[in-house]
Amino acid sequence: MSAISIVKPGYSRKLDLKHGCIEMTHGSGGRAMAQLIQQMFIVAFDNEYLRPMNDQACFPSAIGRMVMSTDSHVVTPLFFPGGDIGCLSVHGTINDIAMAGAKPCYLAVSFILEEGLPLSDLKRIVESMAKAAQNVGVPIVTGDTKVVEKGSGDGVFITTTGLGIVPEGINISGANAQPGDKIVVSGTLGDHGIAVMAFRENLSFQTSIESDTAALHELVANMVVAVPKIHVLRDPTRGGIATTLNEIAQQSSIGMMIHEDRLPIRQEVNAACEFLGLDPLYIANEGKLVAICAAGDAENLLNVMRAHPLGRNAAIIGEVIEDAHCFVQMQTSFGGNRVVDWLSGEQLPRIC
Amino acid sequence: MSAISIVKPGYSRKLDLKHGCIEMTHGSGGRAMAQLIQQMFIVAFDNEYLRPMNDQACFPSAIGRMVMSTDSHVVTPLFFPGGDIGCLSVHGTINDIAMAGAKPCYLAVSFILEEGLPLSDLKRIVESMAKAAQNVGVPIVTGDTKVVEKGSGDGVFITTTGLGIVPEGINISGANAQPGDKIVVSGTLGDHGIAVMAFRENLSFQTSIESDTAALHELVANMVVAVPKIHVLRDPTRGGIATTLNEIAQQSSIGMMIHEDRLPIRQEVNAACEFLGLDPLYIANEGKLVAICAAGDAENLLNVMRAHPLGRNAAIIGEVIEDAHCFVQMQTSFGGNRVVDWLSGEQLPRIC
Repeated sequence: MSAISIVKPGYSRKLDLKHGCIEMTHGSGGRAMAQLIQQMFIVAFDNEYLRPMNDQACFPSAIGRMVMSTDSHVVTPLFFPGGDIGCLSVHGTINDIAMAGAKPCYLAVSFILEEGLPLSDLKRIVESMAKAAQNVGVPIVTGDTKVVEKGSGDGVFITTTGLGIVPEGINISGANAQPGDKIVVSGTLGDHGIAVMAFRENLSFQTSIESDTAALHELVANMVVAVPKIHVLRDPTRGGIATTLNEIAQQSSIGMMIHEDRLPIRQEVNAACEFLGLDPLYIANEGKLVAICAAGDAENLLNVMRAHPLGRNAAIIGEVIEDAHCFVQMQTSFGGNRVVDWLSGEQLPRIC
Repeated sequence: MSAISIVKPGYSRKLDLKHGCIEMTHGSGGRAMAQLIQQMFIVAFDNEYLRPMNDQACFPSAIGRMVMSTDSHVVTPLFFPGGDIGCLSVHGTINDIAMAGAKPCYLAVSFILEEGLPLSDLKRIVESMAKAAQNVGVPIVTGDTKVVEKGSGDGVFITTTGLGIVPEGINISGANAQPGDKIVVSGTLGDHGIAVMAFRENLSFQTSIESDTAALHELVANMVVAVPKIHVLRDPTRGGIATTLNEIAQQSSIGMMIHEDRLPIRQEVNAACEFLGLDPLYIANEGKLVAICAAGDAENLLNVMRAHPLGRNAAIIGEVIEDAHCFVQMQTSFGGNRVVDWLSGEQLPRIC
């Protein structure tokens, strides 16, 4: 059952948004849940598809191809410099839709709330989601709410699922990289992971670094108009750019050579990584993408990316090469070569 | 990021499905996560849409109307008589899609795993999901996996999101009930909630009652062919039939009169409810639906429902009446009348 429900007017009681907390009854399917949904979620997310309040949303479909993507968000803490779990959960799924070159159309959202969560925190999160969805122009059309006992969850987990439409002629997949292609990133690497990590650990440099959480669909829309034949798009989130490049290398059965001195990394992020003993290549991003395209299209693509605020630090960082082992290699600043391997341990748990 | 990824063949290490547990590295985006996905999820869910292993699934869209529904599943325990969280999470979302009269087409699934979960339990759950999806004929096309520390979750939470296509001419909504309509239920009430509750509390009658968890899309397909003008369909899950009827009454601005002696309730469920001090009207079902249609269509609809295994105990339980207060009333077996109110407390937490 989806928990979009409504309150009998005669029974409406106002949620105490200042001092109230999530109670088990908010997940019961009864009156308390209906109040939470009506006074919290519907107020924030209202739109024509959500308004009928059925257990599912109905909308017109388009001819052609659609994409669907889902992501659970378990980031801790819930609020961090530059964002929170609410906007992150919208951006993350919008970006996964955009990485198919698709126009995001609809979002579904499901909450798992822990008993005792302050309603004021939930309100802040929900309003952040609503604002992010509104900025993106994508309605949250259906949803669900569950509550678990204190100690069986951790504040809020949010699962967002997105649906988008792929424009005619666009065929983007991790399997499409070809030897000779150029590898482009849209901006500085590692901002999100370091911002969250520094804040979590209460490190002194935390104030200078913010999460890059952002929706990339507009940037992508400009990119596919300029270069409809982009081969690969992917957002280097959990596991960082190293993981993303290894995934693509594997899917396309190719190798890669990237160049350390071309990687756009903020000085503060580099410093924090040195301090923490982390490698920025493995740090999560939440508002960046990797694009791979034919060499002849790369300069054009780079210029289009740099013309958009979310791509102004875009850079060509390397090339696709033939390699039966599907290795990602890096030419270091000192002139050496090293393999950029898959992450084998756990660097930053619960980063998204 | 969606965590559909693949393992470099050279690095493949076999998961220890017998003695292994979920570790934080299984959520890292790195090698351990890729192994989990490849050796657990892909093996179980394999299909043409999932196989490209991008962060989103791409599929053809149909002309017309689509429906989308999402549900998080937090049922405890993970395994219960008649089912488990795996098949439940498939059935629940398939049913929400079917309740729009739609044909379910695609499923997305997102796991939140707790550190320490035995891999053998996860395998059992994943295989149950795969089997349920296969029985329904709906592929799981994309997914995500997150891991939280021991104590920050509770074994497994599963969020499933479904997409379906509404046949031409079908317009089913909780807002469509009209005075004079008949209210039909597809079978016995309260089986799921009592099965889980009895098992949880280790009650002696537990062996005789099983969850009714089932996918209702075939039953619904037969129903909409026979009576395309069904006004309302809804599955009375969390909060039971009392909550569902109150929701519909509110949405349609009507009242209802149901008849206690027509309610199909198993003797064992009635006995368990008496023992536990519970009202079967508020107990969750996971394989039942409520249908509301014009009085002239009701007998026809009932016969079609009874001809299907999942509707063989279907019964007309009441009528829609005019009521500005939107009350759901019940004629009791003793000849009295009572209001069947919204559930105001919490009867059975984490039932789905």
